Amino acid sequence: MSNGKVEIFDTTLRDGEQVPGCKLNTVQKLKIAEELDSLGVDVIEAGFPVSSPGDFKSVQEISKLVKNASVCGLTRAVKKDIEVAAEALKFAKRPRIHTGIGTSDSHIKYKFNSTREEIIVRAREAVSYAKNFVDDVEFYAEDAGRTDNEYLARVCTAAVEAGATVLNIPDTTGYCLPEEYGKKIKYLKEHVKNIDKVTISCHCHNDLGLATANAIAGIMNGARQIECTINGIGERAGNTALEEVVMILRQHPTLNLHTNIQPKLLYALSNLVSREMGMFVQPNKAIVGANAFAHSSGIHQDGVIKNRETYEIIDPADVGVTESAIILTARSGRAALAYKAKKMGYELTKLQLDIVYAEFLNYADHRKEVADTDLHEIMSISFKNRAIA
Amino acid sequence: MSNGKVEIFDTTLRDGEQVPGCKLNTVQKLKIAEELDSLGVDVIEAGFPVSSPGDFKSVQEISKLVKNASVCGLTRAVKKDIEVAAEALKFAKRPRIHTGIGTSDSHIKYKFNSTREEIIVRAREAVSYAKNFVDDVEFYAEDAGRTDNEYLARVCTAAVEAGATVLNIPDTTGYCLPEEYGKKIKYLKEHVKNIDKVTISCHCHNDLGLATANAIAGIMNGARQIECTINGIGERAGNTALEEVVMILRQHPTLNLHTNIQPKLLYALSNLVSREMGMFVQPNKAIVGANAFAHSSGIHQDGVIKNRETYEIIDPADVGVTESAIILTARSGRAALAYKAKKMGYELTKLQLDIVYAEFLNYADHRKEVADTDLHEIMSISFKNRAIA
Repeated sequence: MSNGKVEIFDTTLRDGEQVPGCKLNTVQKLKIAEELDSLGVDVIEAGFPVSSPGDFKSVQEISKLVKNASVCGLTRAVKKDIEVAAEALKFAKRPRIHTGIGTSDSHIKYKFNSTREEIIVRAREAVSYAKNFVDDVEFYAEDAGRTDNEYLARVCTAAVEAGATVLNIPDTTGYCLPEEYGKKIKYLKEHVKNIDKVTISCHCHNDLGLATANAIAGIMNGARQIECTINGIGERAGNTALEEVVMILRQHPTLNLHTNIQPKLLYALSNLVSREMGMFVQPNKAIVGANAFAHSSGIHQDGVIKNRETYEIIDPADVGVTESAIILTARSGRAALAYKAKKMGYELTKLQLDIVYAEFLNYADHRKEVADTDLHEIMSISFKNRAIA
Repeated sequence: MSNGKVEIFDTTLRDGEQVPGCKLNTVQKLKIAEELDSLGVDVIEAGFPVSSPGDFKSVQEISKLVKNASVCGLTRAVKKDIEVAAEALKFAKRPRIHTGIGTSDSHIKYKFNSTREEIIVRAREAVSYAKNFVDDVEFYAEDAGRTDNEYLARVCTAAVEAGATVLNIPDTTGYCLPEEYGKKIKYLKEHVKNIDKVTISCHCHNDLGLATANAIAGIMNGARQIECTINGIGERAGNTALEEVVMILRQHPTLNLHTNIQPKLLYALSNLVSREMGMFVQPNKAIVGANAFAHSSGIHQDGVIKNRETYEIIDPADVGVTESAIILTARSGRAALAYKAKKMGYELTKLQLDIVYAEFLNYADHRKEVADTDLHEIMSISFKNRAIA
């Protein structure tokens, strides 16, 4: 699996929807699933079927609807979970069961009151059982981020022997540094038997702000699937943001890695998920935030007007944002003012610009932003006071 | 400078305030500056004095107010900028002038219509000129992220020769991958003459969601100052988030790196900045988001109730959050329901819990969250219908 295609496993409807206040009904989930399928994700994790009747129904309906992506249902390493997931996925064109168990000493001791060896047995049994229902079984080693690598490799080897097609290595608590997470993936590539026959998946959490960097470190060390969500939503500080990893791979062609995602649909889908879940996106969110392409300081605006690439590495249109908004504030310079003024029909000489700019600064110092309509007023004051017209 | 102390350079009031809609008046800036000083930041970048009369006044008043931190003013490599900054910083106990120039080929050509050699001359002159006014001069090589390393080392050598005390290596466009940014810092450590006499600073932007990871990569390769903002605000997708880098270093003691920050003040300061700037923080923001410590899924809640460290790597109290909120949703399991119910005075047998849980799921499937008051209603329905009381 050392090719350049990175599979995008979207878990907006499972890990993302698991967030306080984000619950969606089946109709909403179907709408988002349809858009994810158009976006080009490889796998849609549609829910955790055994968790509630609503979740079961959503997974079932999404299975019927989705045309291209695999549809995946989450389970614990519990027979009932696996049976219910298989039933919910019955109509999927490409069904995947996602099963697994905690592998860190903390999880083994406090969550399962079990032992390392017993956990390996349970992992193997869960994968084998799931294989009775579907070919495509993804195994997760929960809290792999805090699991000792040597033991983790043994768990993974057991899962591969039992028929797992994908090995998910979650940094469940968002603790790993990118270097550390990358090394973990590298270790598994080197120590899990038959690892080249399966896909390694990165599932990273953002508790320390490193989910995106960790997923990229995983990919650079041999993983070929990223689990992520639109807008980076998910438990606590969320998951790897789909839009970020997709654009990182796209903007760094020397990595020789690509996804099937249509980036032009990213912005609209970000808005849809935000609206349906009532989870707002902060203005300074990478790629999809309202300010992601807004230049406000004088130095930056001046640079962007001279040549957009001075401060912009992504053409906003590439992710579906129609224009790079130049917003005037007290930090804006003469160039931005002249640019905006020209767009509004005012051709100013250098002397006129100096006078209008002084007036603009006075005006802007008392306001957060200066709108186009304010600019007319500033012009009119400048013209009246100094007779520059 | 190979010790373990990492200086925190806060630019909330300069790069952060440069955001559309975030403009603050002097009174607001003084309030935030005072809190930053209490938080323990080493440097407060207070503004860009030449940019507007309001900014000049703010830098001047902050200089008078701040007791411990250095106060820094931004300038271009322009004499007038440097003179005005020096004047604004006159009353600071520890003044720092931050001057510099674009060094990438894109900046040299399109912004300055200049040549590589001429830029080195201008860099050297700017630092020398600033040294007439203050001892502490930080030099920035704008767009260093996209600057050829060999040339960047030459610019930095010139700045050090001219007396710079800090070398700021900004990834202005947020383009670098952590590995690449780390290698850049390592290259400079190895190729800039007398680099050990100055501090290397990381100034990273978040356009691809990597600002925090890049700053940490810089520190791991020899930098000893991080430029950052509260809540990660700043131009476009913002800067490295102060709260994230501080907590990464604190939670990874094996790095042997530390800051002077008092983490218990982080949450209150995040709220203050968000409120004063009108820039909301998304719920899934690391460390300071409303959901950063909220566990909502059944599996997670169950784990946290058994032992908090199963899913939590930071004690919320450490960053000033008073409790880890357990929020009930349709994804919650029996354990979370029983835990909440017990806190509200209901001791349920296993059978009672099954009945109440079924009712709870019906109820929760139609709602985003289940509040404590809803729980009383669920109990009352369960008790009435099934006579379990």
